[in-house]
Amino acid sequence: MFREKIKVLDCTIRDGGLINNHDFDEKLVKEVYKAISSAGVDYMEMGYKNSKQLFSPDEYGLWKFCDDEVIKRVVDGVESKTKISVMVDIGRVDINDVKPASKSPVDMIRVASYVKDVDKAISMVNHFADKGYETTINIMAISRDQGIELDEALHQIEKESRVSVVYIVDSFGALYQEPVEVLVKKFKNILTTKEIGFHGHNHQQLAFGNTIEAIIHGANYLDGTVYGIGRAAGNCPLELLIGFLKNPKFDIRPILDLISNEFVPLREKIEWGYIIPYAISGMMNEHPKAAMALRKTDKREDYREFYESLVELGLD
Amino acid sequence: MFREKIKVLDCTIRDGGLINNHDFDEKLVKEVYKAISSAGVDYMEMGYKNSKQLFSPDEYGLWKFCDDEVIKRVVDGVESKTKISVMVDIGRVDINDVKPASKSPVDMIRVASYVKDVDKAISMVNHFADKGYETTINIMAISRDQGIELDEALHQIEKESRVSVVYIVDSFGALYQEPVEVLVKKFKNILTTKEIGFHGHNHQQLAFGNTIEAIIHGANYLDGTVYGIGRAAGNCPLELLIGFLKNPKFDIRPILDLISNEFVPLREKIEWGYIIPYAISGMMNEHPKAAMALRKTDKREDYREFYESLVELGLD
Repeated sequence: MFREKIKVLDCTIRDGGLINNHDFDEKLVKEVYKAISSAGVDYMEMGYKNSKQLFSPDEYGLWKFCDDEVIKRVVDGVESKTKISVMVDIGRVDINDVKPASKSPVDMIRVASYVKDVDKAISMVNHFADKGYETTINIMAISRDQGIELDEALHQIEKESRVSVVYIVDSFGALYQEPVEVLVKKFKNILTTKEIGFHGHNHQQLAFGNTIEAIIHGANYLDGTVYGIGRAAGNCPLELLIGFLKNPKFDIRPILDLISNEFVPLREKIEWGYIIPYAISGMMNEHPKAAMALRKTDKREDYREFYESLVELGLD
Repeated sequence: MFREKIKVLDCTIRDGGLINNHDFDEKLVKEVYKAISSAGVDYMEMGYKNSKQLFSPDEYGLWKFCDDEVIKRVVDGVESKTKISVMVDIGRVDINDVKPASKSPVDMIRVASYVKDVDKAISMVNHFADKGYETTINIMAISRDQGIELDEALHQIEKESRVSVVYIVDSFGALYQEPVEVLVKKFKNILTTKEIGFHGHNHQQLAFGNTIEAIIHGANYLDGTVYGIGRAAGNCPLELLIGFLKNPKFDIRPILDLISNEFVPLREKIEWGYIIPYAISGMMNEHPKAAMALRKTDKREDYREFYESLVELGLD
C-alpha cells in the first residue's frame, strides 16, 4: 500500500523558529529530535544557517545559525536514523561558514528561493553538492509565481543544477487542490531527473489536504511540523501526515507524547494555527506578515477592518 | 467562473448544538440569522425537530425542538432570502408535530439516516414532501458504510423517494480526498435525478479540502458552520467556503463581524476545533464520542493512552 520513495521531513524547529526568533530551548530541541527519531521520520530540519555578520546572536536564538557544535550536542547520545537538514536563505548565508559534509553533522541543505533568484539558488546548491551535501531548492511564494518565469526556472534547474529535490512552497497558504495538482504535474514534467517536494501552509486549513494532493500526483518529499507549528497559521501537522502514510516504519506514538508534554503547553505561550486574519491572507494570496503584525495590536480581532485593508491594497 | 447550482447551507446552530445541548441564546441565534442572510447564504439550519415526548425541554435548549413559534421570533423583522432548514433523526421525531410547509417558517427538512435505516428515511422524506417541504437524506457515518449496502440504499432512494438532495456525511472525519471523489462519483452515477450534498467533519483538518473535492466532482449542496463550530473538531468553516466560491451573491464581511463579536468569545466557553483526540478518532475511523468524553476528564491531554485504547478496540 505504501510508496517507498516517500520521505518525510520535520521542520518543527525551523519553521516554528519564525514565530519566536528561533529561540527554542536546547532541551526542547533534543526532545523533538528524540521523538522524530523514534517516530521514524526521515529528516529533521534544525533551523537556518545565517551569517553572524548579518544577524547578531544576541538578538536571535541558536536555530538562526545552526552551528555544527550546537547540532552535535542535540544529536549526541540519541539512537537515530533521522538525517539532519538546515535551510539557507539567498543573501543571508556565508557559504564559507559551511564545512564539507564529511566534517558536519548536517546531511542536507535546503536553499529557499523565489523564482527570480533561481540563478543564485542553482549556484548555491551546486556549491553545497560539491561539499557532499544532499540539496533541495524550495521555491517560495509559488502562488504568486505560476507564470512562464516559473517554467523557465524549472528548465534551468533541470539543466544546470545537481539538486536532488525541488519543493513547491505555498508560503501564503493560498493554494487549493487544483493548483497543487497542476503544479506537481508541471514540476514532474520538467524536472525529469529530480524528486518533487511539497511544503504547505495552513492559513486555509489546507496544508494537510494539499500535501495529500501532492502525494497523489507524485511528490515524494513532504514537510510537516509537530502539532502544525510554524509561521502564521503553521504547517501540515506531522501527526496527521504520519497517520495517513501507511509505511510501517513510522510510529505516531512518540509524536503524540511530544505534543502532550511539550507542544500543548508551548501553544499557550506562542500563537499559531487557524486564526481568521491568516485565513484572509490566504484567500487574498498575500504574505501573512500584515496579519502577524495585526495580532500584536489591540485590533487583533477586528477581522472586517483587516479584510477591507487587503481589499484596498488589491485595488491600489 | 462560479457554478450557479451550488447552494450553501449554514448549520452553525444545528451542529454546534451538539456540543452545548442545543442551548444557544435566542439573541445569538438572531445575530447568526442576520449575518447569514446578509452574507447571501442559501439556507440556515436552526436545529433538530425532536419529540418533546422523548426529550424534556428542561434538559435541552430551544434548538433541540425548533418550534415554529421560536423560529418565527428569530426570522421576524429580518430582511432575508435565506431559507430555513431543520434536521430530524429517525425515531426521535413525531411527524405529527410537523405542520404543512405553507403554515410553517421552515422550508427544508433534512433526515439524518444511517444506511441501515434508509427505508425509514424514504418514508419520512416522502411524508414531508407531501407536506410541501424541500427534503434531503443525509447519510451519516459513511466512512463505515461504503459497501454494497450503500449502493442498494442509493438505488432505493433514487427509485422510491421524492427527496431533492442526498448528502454524504463524514461523521467521523475519516475521509481523505480519494474516498470523497469515489463517493461523489458513485452518488452521481446512481442518483441521476437528485442533487448531491457534502457535510464534512474537521477531525483531520480535511473538512474544507474534502468539500472542495466534493465540489470538483459535482456536489452542489455544501454545509458549513461559522468559525467551523460543530461536534468534536467541528465542520467546514463557512468563511473559508464563502472565500473559495466565486458567486458574487456571497459576502464574507457579515461572517467576519459575527466571528469577531460572537464566536471568538464563544470559543472561550465551549470547545471545538483541531484537538488531538479528535484527530486520532478520525484516523481510526471511530465515532468521536470517546474523545469527547475524554476531554471532560483529567486525562484530556493523555493522547498516547487514548490512542492505545482505540488500537485495543480495533484488535478486540
